[in-house]
Amino acid sequence: MDAVQEPLGLVAEETLDPPDWADVQALSHQVIDDAVDYLRDIRDRPVWREMPADVREAFAAPLPRSPAPLDAVYGEVSRTVMSYPMGNIHPRFWSWYMGSSNFTGALGDFLAAIQGSNLGGGNHAAGLMDGQVVNWCKEMLGFPASAGGTLVSGGSMANIIGLTVARNVKAGIDVREHGVAAIEKPLRFYGSDQIHSCHRKAMEALGLGNRALRRIPTDAGLRIDIAALRAAISEDRAAGFKPACVIGTAGTVNTGAIDDLQALARLAHEEGLWFHIDGCIGALIAIAPENAHRVAGIEWADSVALDPHKWLHAPFEVGCALVRDAAAHRRTFAVTPEYLESTPRGLASGEWLHDYGLQTSRGFRALKVWMALKEHGVEKFGRLIDQNIAQAFYLAGLIEAEPLLELAALPTINIACFRYQPGLAGEALKALNTEIMLRLQEQGIAALSDTTVHGEHWLRVAITNHRTRRTDLDLLVRETVRLGHEIAPQGAASS
Amino acid sequence: MDAVQEPLGLVAEETLDPPDWADVQALSHQVIDDAVDYLRDIRDRPVWREMPADVREAFAAPLPRSPAPLDAVYGEVSRTVMSYPMGNIHPRFWSWYMGSSNFTGALGDFLAAIQGSNLGGGNHAAGLMDGQVVNWCKEMLGFPASAGGTLVSGGSMANIIGLTVARNVKAGIDVREHGVAAIEKPLRFYGSDQIHSCHRKAMEALGLGNRALRRIPTDAGLRIDIAALRAAISEDRAAGFKPACVIGTAGTVNTGAIDDLQALARLAHEEGLWFHIDGCIGALIAIAPENAHRVAGIEWADSVALDPHKWLHAPFEVGCALVRDAAAHRRTFAVTPEYLESTPRGLASGEWLHDYGLQTSRGFRALKVWMALKEHGVEKFGRLIDQNIAQAFYLAGLIEAEPLLELAALPTINIACFRYQPGLAGEALKALNTEIMLRLQEQGIAALSDTTVHGEHWLRVAITNHRTRRTDLDLLVRETVRLGHEIAPQGAASS
Ligand SMILES: Cc1ncc(COP(=O)(O)O)c(C=O)c1O
Ligand SMILES: Cc1ncc(COP(=O)(O)O)c(C=O)c1O
Repeated sequence: MDAVQEPLGLVAEETLDPPDWADVQALSHQVIDDAVDYLRDIRDRPVWREMPADVREAFAAPLPRSPAPLDAVYGEVSRTVMSYPMGNIHPRFWSWYMGSSNFTGALGDFLAAIQGSNLGGGNHAAGLMDGQVVNWCKEMLGFPASAGGTLVSGGSMANIIGLTVARNVKAGIDVREHGVAAIEKPLRFYGSDQIHSCHRKAMEALGLGNRALRRIPTDAGLRIDIAALRAAISEDRAAGFKPACVIGTAGTVNTGAIDDLQALARLAHEEGLWFHIDGCIGALIAIAPENAHRVAGIEWADSVALDPHKWLHAPFEVGCALVRDAAAHRRTFAVTPEYLESTPRGLASGEWLHDYGLQTSRGFRALKVWMALKEHGVEKFGRLIDQNIAQAFYLAGLIEAEPLLELAALPTINIACFRYQPGLAGEALKALNTEIMLRLQEQGIAALSDTTVHGEHWLRVAITNHRTRRTDLDLLVRETVRLGHEIAPQGAASS
Repeated sequence: MDAVQEPLGLVAEETLDPPDWADVQALSHQVIDDAVDYLRDIRDRPVWREMPADVREAFAAPLPRSPAPLDAVYGEVSRTVMSYPMGNIHPRFWSWYMGSSNFTGALGDFLAAIQGSNLGGGNHAAGLMDGQVVNWCKEMLGFPASAGGTLVSGGSMANIIGLTVARNVKAGIDVREHGVAAIEKPLRFYGSDQIHSCHRKAMEALGLGNRALRRIPTDAGLRIDIAALRAAISEDRAAGFKPACVIGTAGTVNTGAIDDLQALARLAHEEGLWFHIDGCIGALIAIAPENAHRVAGIEWADSVALDPHKWLHAPFEVGCALVRDAAAHRRTFAVTPEYLESTPRGLASGEWLHDYGLQTSRGFRALKVWMALKEHGVEKFGRLIDQNIAQAFYLAGLIEAEPLLELAALPTINIACFRYQPGLAGEALKALNTEIMLRLQEQGIAALSDTTVHGEHWLRVAITNHRTRRTDLDLLVRETVRLGHEIAPQGAASS
C-alpha cells in the first residue's frame, strides 16, 4: 500500500460529533429535566421491580449496524435501563453494601467525560485534582501527608493494592522479577473469619493462594480474636512460614464488626508484620464525630482500603488505597517504558499516576468526589454517617419493641440483622424470612439482603443511604410483620 | 449504647439531595450549554497549555470542612479542570494512545450515575445491558456467542483477566488454593520485545514474576519472530519450564505492528499453549472493512483484551476481556460468599457479574458504549477506524514529500513515526526533535509523543481521533518544519 497514492481527497471525513449541536443540546436539557424528576420523585417509585419479558428481550438484540436518532436511543434507555434500576438510590434500599449516589456526583462524571482526560499521567489539571482527592482521603483518616495513595475502581482493588505492597515488601527478594515461587519461606497473611471475599480473590490473584490467608476465629462480637491470632503466628513461624501481613477489618460486611485496630497495630509492630486495614465499610467513620472513636488506630496502618462509592455516596466507581510508605507503594508498581519517558516540560512532565496501581489509562474518578465534598463539606458527610449509625440503632429499638421480631445483636455501626420469629426454627424459619425478603422486594417496599451469623439465618439491613428517614424504618418493621402474618398466619397465631 | 434511649426525635435528618431541585436544574442546563460549546468550539482552542501557578496552587487546598454553593463549585471546576485538559479530545492530539471521547458517551456516564446501579450483580436492567455489550464485543471480533467476557477498567485489566485464566488453566494444580509456588514446573509466557508494559505488571501481580515473560525478538516490521518463538519454547521445555501462554499483540503501542495472529494460533495449538491476544489497539480493526484483513486470526484466540475507550472513543474507563472458554473464565474468579447467596426470585436472582474479574462493586460502563453504538451503528465506527489508518498513510505521504522530514517506516495502521532531519545525528537530533515536540505542545498546535524504534529516537503520531481531518495533518507538517527552522536554522541551511 503506497501512502502517496491513496485517493484520500475523494473520501469525506466523518466524526462522532453531531451535525447539529442544537439538537443534542435540546435533548440534553430533556435528559437533565428527567434526571431531576427521577431523583426528586424517587420516594414515589418502588425500590425495585421485576423486568417484564419484553424489557429482558431488548437486551438480546444484536450489534446495531446502522445509525439511530439520539432521541430514540435515549427513549430506549429510559424505557429499559432507567425504569428497572437495582434500587440503591432509593431511600428504602438497604441490601448488600453500597452508597446511594448523588446528583452532583453525576454532573462530575458527565464533566469528566466531556473533558475526557486520561489520568494515567501527564501534566494537566485532572491529574492534580486526583492527587488532591487522595490527599483529602489521608486527611479524613489522619494519615500523614507524606503517605502514598491512589484512586482505584473500588474497595476490592484498593485491597489488592495494599496487599500487593505488603507481599512485595515482605517477600525478602525481588519478587517482581522472580515471582512468588522464589520466596524462601512461604508468606502468611491473617484476617478474621469475617473477612470480605475480595481478600480471597486478592490472595489468589497475587499467586499466594487462598491457603496463605489464615482465617482467625472471632469473638462474640465477631471481632478478630487477638490471642488466637498471636497463637497462629507463632505456630506458623515454628512451621517454617513467614508471617507477613495482618488484615484488620474496620466494619465487616456481615454485621459491621470493627476489629480492635489498636491491638492489631501493636501486634503487627511487635511481630514485624505489615498492617493492612480493610476500611471499605468503616474507614470513613473517622470523619463522623459521634462514632470516630470506633475506628481509633486506623491511622496506624501501613495501608488502608477505603471506598468513597460507599459512605461518600460517589457514583460508581471509586475506591482509594493509602500506603504509609509512599516509596514502597511506587516500588511495587512503577514501570517506565521508553515511549512514556518524562520530558522536562510540556504534557509529559507530570507524574505518572499509573505507577501506583495496575491500570495504565485511568479515568477521572476524582471529580465526582471533589465536587460533592466541596458542595457539602466533609462535616456534613460525617454527620450523615452518624445519622446512618443512629438509624440502625433506632431500627434495633423498633425490633426489640416488636414481639414478632428478633434482633441478632445490637448493631455495632449501621448494620442490623433480625428476623421474623413466630416460633419456628431451622429451615422453616429461614424459608419464611426469605419469603418476606422477596416479597418486600417484589412489592417494591424495601430491599434487604440475608446472611448467616453464628450459623443462623438473618435478614440484614445495611443503612448506607443519605435518603433514608426514620419513618422508612418504621415502615419496614410494619411491613415485615404484615408480610409475616400473610405468609405464616398459623405461625403468627402460635406466637 | 442502648438503641431505645437514643434521642433520635430531636435530630433533623439530612440528605445530599438539594433543598431546591429547581436551582440544580437551572445550573445543570448551564453545564450542558457549556459542554456543548466546549466540544463544538474545541478546534478554536489550543490542544494543550501549561497551567498558571494559581491554578496549580488551587489543587493544594485542604479538605473542605463547610459547604459551598454548587454554582461556585462548578465555577471553580470550569476555571481549573475544564480549562487545562490533557487535550485528547482535540482534533490535533496524537500523543500516547487513547480515544477522544464523545458527547453521547458523556450523557451515558451521567445517566449511569443518576440511575446508580451496582453491576457487581443482581437482577436489574443495567446488568443485562452489561452482558449485551460484552456480546456485541464478541460479535465485533467474530468470537463465538458461547464465549465468556467482562467489561473492566481498561486494557491493562483486560489483559490481567486473560493472563490470569491462562495461568490457572495451565498450572496443572489448584493454583487458586495453593498458589504459584506449588506449580510443579515453572510456567513461561511469551510475547514480543514490543509488548506493552502492562504485561510486565500483570506477570508481577500474578506472582509469576517478570522473568517468566520471555521477550522474543521481532522482525524488521517489529512483529514477533515465529521461528525465534518456537526455539525459545523448546529451549524452555528442555530446561524444565512449562511453556504456558503466548501473547500476540494486535497493534503495538510503539508502531502499530500486528503479530502474525494466524501463525501464532497454529503454533499455540501445536505446542499446547494458551493463546492470548493484546488487542487494545488493534482488535477493533476487525470492524473496519478496508483493514479487517490485518487482524485475521483474532477470532482464534483463547482470550483477547480489547479497549472501547480507545477506538470506540468511549469516555474513560472501559476495557473488555473475552475468554473463549466461559467456564474456565468463571472458574478463575468466582466466589460465592454466604451473604451473596443467590435467591430464586427478586433482586438477587441475577448473575453475579463480579464472578468474572477482580472487582466486587462494578460501575455501569456499558451504557456509554451502548448509546454510542446505537446512535452511530458499528459500521460508522468501522469507517472511522479506516479513516484514521488512511490519515496515517496520508501523513506518511506528506512526510515523504518533505525533504526535511524523515519517515521511520510506512505505517502499519494508524501510527506514524518521523523526525525533522536537517543533517544531524544522535543526541543533537534527539534534542532538536524533542524541542519541536515540546513547542508544538506549548504553542497549542499539536500533541505528539516520542519513542525509540530500532534504537533511534522518533516523533510519534498515533491517530485515534474522530475529530482529526487531513488538513490537521497538513498543518502538523508545516508547523514542524517551521519550528525546525526556528530552533536549528543552521541545520536547515545545511540540508
Ligand atoms: C468489608 C468490605 N471489603 C471490601 C469490599 C469490596 O468493595 P468494592 O465492592 O468497592 O470492591 C466490600 C464491599 O462491600 C466490603 O464490605
Ligand atoms: C498495546 C496496548 N496494550 C495495552 C494497553 C493498556 O490499555 P489501557 O491503557 O486501557 O489500560 C495499551 C495502552 O495504550 C496498549 O497500547
